[in-house]
Amino acid sequence: MTGPPAGTRRPVRIGVIGYGAMGKAHAYGYTAAPVIRALSVTPVLAAISGRHAAGVEAAAGKLGFESWTTDWREIVERRDIDIVDICTPPGTHTEIVEAAAGAGKAVVCEKPLAASLADAESALAAVERNGVLNAIGFNYRRLPAVALMHEIVASGEIGEVLLWRGSWLSDEFLDPAIAFDWRFDREMGATTIADLGSHLVDLAEWLVSPVDAVCAQSATFTNARSQPDGESVRVRVDEASSALLRFESGARGVLEVARTCARRPCDFTVEVNGTRGTLVFDYSRLNELRLGRVADDEHLYGMRTIRAEHPSHPYAADWWAIGQGVGYGASFVNFFGDLLAAWPDGPWAPDLAVGLRVQRVCDAMERSVGERRWIDVVG
Amino acid sequence: MTGPPAGTRRPVRIGVIGYGAMGKAHAYGYTAAPVIRALSVTPVLAAISGRHAAGVEAAAGKLGFESWTTDWREIVERRDIDIVDICTPPGTHTEIVEAAAGAGKAVVCEKPLAASLADAESALAAVERNGVLNAIGFNYRRLPAVALMHEIVASGEIGEVLLWRGSWLSDEFLDPAIAFDWRFDREMGATTIADLGSHLVDLAEWLVSPVDAVCAQSATFTNARSQPDGESVRVRVDEASSALLRFESGARGVLEVARTCARRPCDFTVEVNGTRGTLVFDYSRLNELRLGRVADDEHLYGMRTIRAEHPSHPYAADWWAIGQGVGYGASFVNFFGDLLAAWPDGPWAPDLAVGLRVQRVCDAMERSVGERRWIDVVG
Amino acid sequence: MTGPPAGTRRPVRIGVIGYGAMGKAHAYGYTAAPVIRALSVTPVLAAISGRHAAGVEAAAGKLGFESWTTDWREIVERRDIDIVDICTPPGTHTEIVEAAAGAGKAVVCEKPLAASLADAESALAAVERNGVLNAIGFNYRRLPAVALMHEIVASGEIGEVLLWRGSWLSDEFLDPAIAFDWRFDREMGATTIADLGSHLVDLAEWLVSPVDAVCAQSATFTNARSQPDGESVRVRVDEASSALLRFESGARGVLEVARTCARRPCDFTVEVNGTRGTLVFDYSRLNELRLGRVADDEHLYGMRTIRAEHPSHPYAADWWAIGQGVGYGASFVNFFGDLLAAWPDGPWAPDLAVGLRVQRVCDAMERSVGERRWIDVVG
Amino acid sequence: MTGPPAGTRRPVRIGVIGYGAMGKAHAYGYTAAPVIRALSVTPVLAAISGRHAAGVEAAAGKLGFESWTTDWREIVERRDIDIVDICTPPGTHTEIVEAAAGAGKAVVCEKPLAASLADAESALAAVERNGVLNAIGFNYRRLPAVALMHEIVASGEIGEVLLWRGSWLSDEFLDPAIAFDWRFDREMGATTIADLGSHLVDLAEWLVSPVDAVCAQSATFTNARSQPDGESVRVRVDEASSALLRFESGARGVLEVARTCARRPCDFTVEVNGTRGTLVFDYSRLNELRLGRVADDEHLYGMRTIRAEHPSHPYAADWWAIGQGVGYGASFVNFFGDLLAAWPDGPWAPDLAVGLRVQRVCDAMERSVGERRWIDVVG
Repeated sequence: MTGPPAGTRRPVRIGVIGYGAMGKAHAYGYTAAPVIRALSVTPVLAAISGRHAAGVEAAAGKLGFESWTTDWREIVERRDIDIVDICTPPGTHTEIVEAAAGAGKAVVCEKPLAASLADAESALAAVERNGVLNAIGFNYRRLPAVALMHEIVASGEIGEVLLWRGSWLSDEFLDPAIAFDWRFDREMGATTIADLGSHLVDLAEWLVSPVDAVCAQSATFTNARSQPDGESVRVRVDEASSALLRFESGARGVLEVARTCARRPCDFTVEVNGTRGTLVFDYSRLNELRLGRVADDEHLYGMRTIRAEHPSHPYAADWWAIGQGVGYGASFVNFFGDLLAAWPDGPWAPDLAVGLRVQRVCDAMERSVGERRWIDVVG
Repeated sequence: MTGPPAGTRRPVRIGVIGYGAMGKAHAYGYTAAPVIRALSVTPVLAAISGRHAAGVEAAAGKLGFESWTTDWREIVERRDIDIVDICTPPGTHTEIVEAAAGAGKAVVCEKPLAASLADAESALAAVERNGVLNAIGFNYRRLPAVALMHEIVASGEIGEVLLWRGSWLSDEFLDPAIAFDWRFDREMGATTIADLGSHLVDLAEWLVSPVDAVCAQSATFTNARSQPDGESVRVRVDEASSALLRFESGARGVLEVARTCARRPCDFTVEVNGTRGTLVFDYSRLNELRLGRVADDEHLYGMRTIRAEHPSHPYAADWWAIGQGVGYGASFVNFFGDLLAAWPDGPWAPDLAVGLRVQRVCDAMERSVGERRWIDVVG
Repeated sequence: MTGPPAGTRRPVRIGVIGYGAMGKAHAYGYTAAPVIRALSVTPVLAAISGRHAAGVEAAAGKLGFESWTTDWREIVERRDIDIVDICTPPGTHTEIVEAAAGAGKAVVCEKPLAASLADAESALAAVERNGVLNAIGFNYRRLPAVALMHEIVASGEIGEVLLWRGSWLSDEFLDPAIAFDWRFDREMGATTIADLGSHLVDLAEWLVSPVDAVCAQSATFTNARSQPDGESVRVRVDEASSALLRFESGARGVLEVARTCARRPCDFTVEVNGTRGTLVFDYSRLNELRLGRVADDEHLYGMRTIRAEHPSHPYAADWWAIGQGVGYGASFVNFFGDLLAAWPDGPWAPDLAVGLRVQRVCDAMERSVGERRWIDVVG
Repeated sequence: MTGPPAGTRRPVRIGVIGYGAMGKAHAYGYTAAPVIRALSVTPVLAAISGRHAAGVEAAAGKLGFESWTTDWREIVERRDIDIVDICTPPGTHTEIVEAAAGAGKAVVCEKPLAASLADAESALAAVERNGVLNAIGFNYRRLPAVALMHEIVASGEIGEVLLWRGSWLSDEFLDPAIAFDWRFDREMGATTIADLGSHLVDLAEWLVSPVDAVCAQSATFTNARSQPDGESVRVRVDEASSALLRFESGARGVLEVARTCARRPCDFTVEVNGTRGTLVFDYSRLNELRLGRVADDEHLYGMRTIRAEHPSHPYAADWWAIGQGVGYGASFVNFFGDLLAAWPDGPWAPDLAVGLRVQRVCDAMERSVGERRWIDVVG
């Protein structure tokens, strides 16, 4: 017997704004999702936009888009586009979200939601006003081991959470010779608290409860950087920040983000300590989750390392045989797989309301740094 | 500005034989390769075959093939197919290779090349006789850290290799209640020496030199298993084997493969000790490579853990920012990316000659088990 | 040839106050030091004191003391005692230090120096007034890997320190059923900030620079515990605290101590990030130190794991062949070895002035918790 | 109240033959044992011997011996000596064992028992003929985590053992410039199979069952070394050996010992795979034991890391609080603690019969290398 593929899958047409690292990661996610997941729709990479014609044209060719444009508004306005996926720097998000929502498009927006709290509020208002599906790019929730961590906490297996800690250490800003670019421009790239910290805050609130007060400090060790033209520009972005957290539930937390840690590329760790157990996730071993349970025989005192690839684990059955492991890309495949599986009725999670919530916590941290005191998180 | 994607990429049309775990992994590799790699051709999933119509039809739909068939010969005979990619059990490989090569197709064949040395010789003869491009699925060579390991050994940085050791531990055959299936059928699934050991032997010969003598032992702890119909069948496949190796270079080695190791899913490790350094790869940390160099200051005695994701490392610049990590799937993306980059002129590596060479070593191990003595590897 | 041992070693007679876990660890340290170190004096365990006659009598027998008493003042007053070593709860330290210093004895005092800043000041004043040698029990400085960490930082090899982080996680207070004892009595056992945190603060200031401002939070999840007689007592000791640190040098830090982390027995980690490198110490691998250097070839990106047992490393030549490893006890052997090697002229380090300095930082943290604001460290 | 130590402990007087690394380790063990263990006897370091007067005199002083001699026979003949503890090179063991046993002394002998099977047989015959207590220095059995490993295997918790693997990797012979000394003299230092391998064989037989057949290979990469006088001497000791093992129980094993592994100081690992679980010990994390159990919920798939310091674990209650860790020295403290606790009636374990048994396996390996075939272990 011979024939065409089973099923007729409805296309869902996607326009991606931005063709940098995130544009590539998203394109990968949409492309691989149908192979990995059993979906009833087929994502189509309809269009991609970017400011530089040569660059975006090349990206469109390589990443498999049907078309490209240097004007993101064209994508927003195209009738055939279902989802607008925003992969540009944070400072541009709100304007694009507003336009896309206004055009009735579903919106996927990379994190942080915006470079300011006011902008984040406007972005959320836009999707709510227009009633469009929306999602914020906290992709790490979709790593199998992180999803398992959430599942175990939610099951009550480790009891009530008492303590949370998260850190993200990299060396990307360590060298003073790195030229000034948009990442060092607070209005465009947002703070390190917002850029890296937003992922950690999202995981903290997802795993524990809302954060209700913070106290933070920030440091910038290289206060000025040269632009390509040689002009020195003052850096107003924090390179390293740390914060004490109080959760509504009564739990306490510690958060650290730093981009001046030599030979640490992207070492993000999250730990929760509950009344009945501990869970530890370390990104450098992203297919594993450590669990210590008070209920376990004391003779076996210690933690177990769960290989978070068992078919019973979140997402694992979609991927490879246990032990083979997934990488960073899987977080996008799983994320977009979930969004497409819920198309067109939703719900989508996390949504821009979560993005705003996280932004409030990050904003409170930034204010705490400026005012050198504890700040309550409002809203 | 607006336009179509840059470049016109010639399609390379692929027919995959088999829709099991390997068929899926290969489909993933062909699908993701263009997003990750800068290719001048576009792989097209033209057809997939399998014995069960419903299954292959569903797989074709999910994995994105244009068509399916229950008769693999149809794929081999189709004019529009450029590459025949064989993902069926080892015992079927040779017949398909012969037909595909005979039809002038380029051949990709999963490992082990065959379930017997005679079949493997026939398979190689077929591709050589027909002068077609051919490759054997030793995908682990394309993990970035393994490729880096090879690069460092080849550079001479660790000196002359003295010792090699490799082991592959899993628990997939531990439970006596697991039903008899083709994996336990020696003529269809081949031995554990061939199935798991072939990967290790390939890495051993790639990293060190040809193996010229082996001495091996095998054990099967569950000697009979029930078929779905309840009939008990004798198992003639080894569950656990180990071997001493002598290399032509004078180096020595130890190899172990076992499928009866509780709670080990796929823990494969390879280490080489040279006159000037040591390299250790552990699959459970697949983005890392450990290196200890005699030349390093003794005050820093120990090994360093290389995060094998630096842009200067093999394949790394194609993927994500350092620290983010890739998974099992990357080995296929990198493998097929390399094959497509060399289309249509080649060379392709490793080819079926490598597959035969590895088969000779595995065959010598199997004979050594039977004859309970050292066996020279001939050919 | 036959004869008596080489050399005549002068005895140094030691009186230990307290026979609990610390009394045992100190007795071990004095006993093993001469075997491990080449000393010109011989420590003699002259006397031990404790409140319970049967207990201290048994301890004296087991630990090898010449005599015991239930009255620590007897030890302080004995003419034949050279060193008074104080291993009692923190709330008792000052009175004993004052008496011992007043009697002209050299003083070794366990950490934290006292249960209050005022007491700590009195203790230091006493040893200074009497001009006696004195040392505070920050034994972790003497773990080989920690000493190596200090040596590398001090050498300038990792450049100027930008960030420091330290955490100490245990589960010793997690179970609400644990009875109230002196550890939960703030005036006797001191806070967790002081008990565990003092070790971390000492390492922070030793590795970086004085801490000049702190902001801290504390939590006590089990607010009342039962005494053996069943009476419920309010717990005023923090179970989990965290703090932001600012160093005089401009570096920043984060510190966490917690005793409510399930299945973490004593997992203390310290990391410093400098302009040219990173150093990481993890107590659970106490014979190792991780180092990442910016100067190393980028192709080898990552950190190396130094086996801190090379003969060129601090203390290592005194112990075993490389790779064999030492344990907790070695910190005491090395500590007392250093003190005895400097007998009777000194200097001893760290001394009670360091103890007071650390107490000031811990006290500032405690005040910060109470006042919910940043507190400058004065003095 | 004031008084002398509790209890009157009978002295057990010990004479140590040899003052090298082992002499020091044994002296440390005897010295620290009473502090750590509750013993009813007190070990006294009565005498130590060595060939060089200045060296042994200094060692006696440092290690705390009452006397020294350059003639080991004096120690054997002294009336006041209870235990003769032999820490000299393997080639000298038998003569000393015979003399000590003949003098009615209890004998502790370092491993391997001898440098030849015939000598080992003579040594065992001597202690049996004279009916003296005797023990062989397989000290690693007394590491808490190794003792726990044995306890768990013996309890049946991991079921019937199917596979065993052990390896010991070091770099001590890697550099061809290392001068010839007794370690390279096969008749004095024994082979690497015997020196390092004997520890592994002991653990294999202790954990699994007697080994009944072996097949081994050996390599020596530096075939000649210079003596201090410049003369080149042929090296007849193996630098790297590996072996396949068959156990009487039907289990299979793989063993490797190598002294040419760059930047591996002493990395010894042992793993057993049973029908119901896996246990892994890695010396570089000597306070931990990994356990994976088939009976554990599949949702928690993986292995747990037991911190082998819980009071319920072997030896742990004698030492420090959980998490603090012990080192190499603890194996001697625990070993001699056990021997002294059984003084004077015994039994002592492992005894010289175990030492001979291990020697038979090592000898079979050496013969297998020479004859290039499987060798049955006899006796």
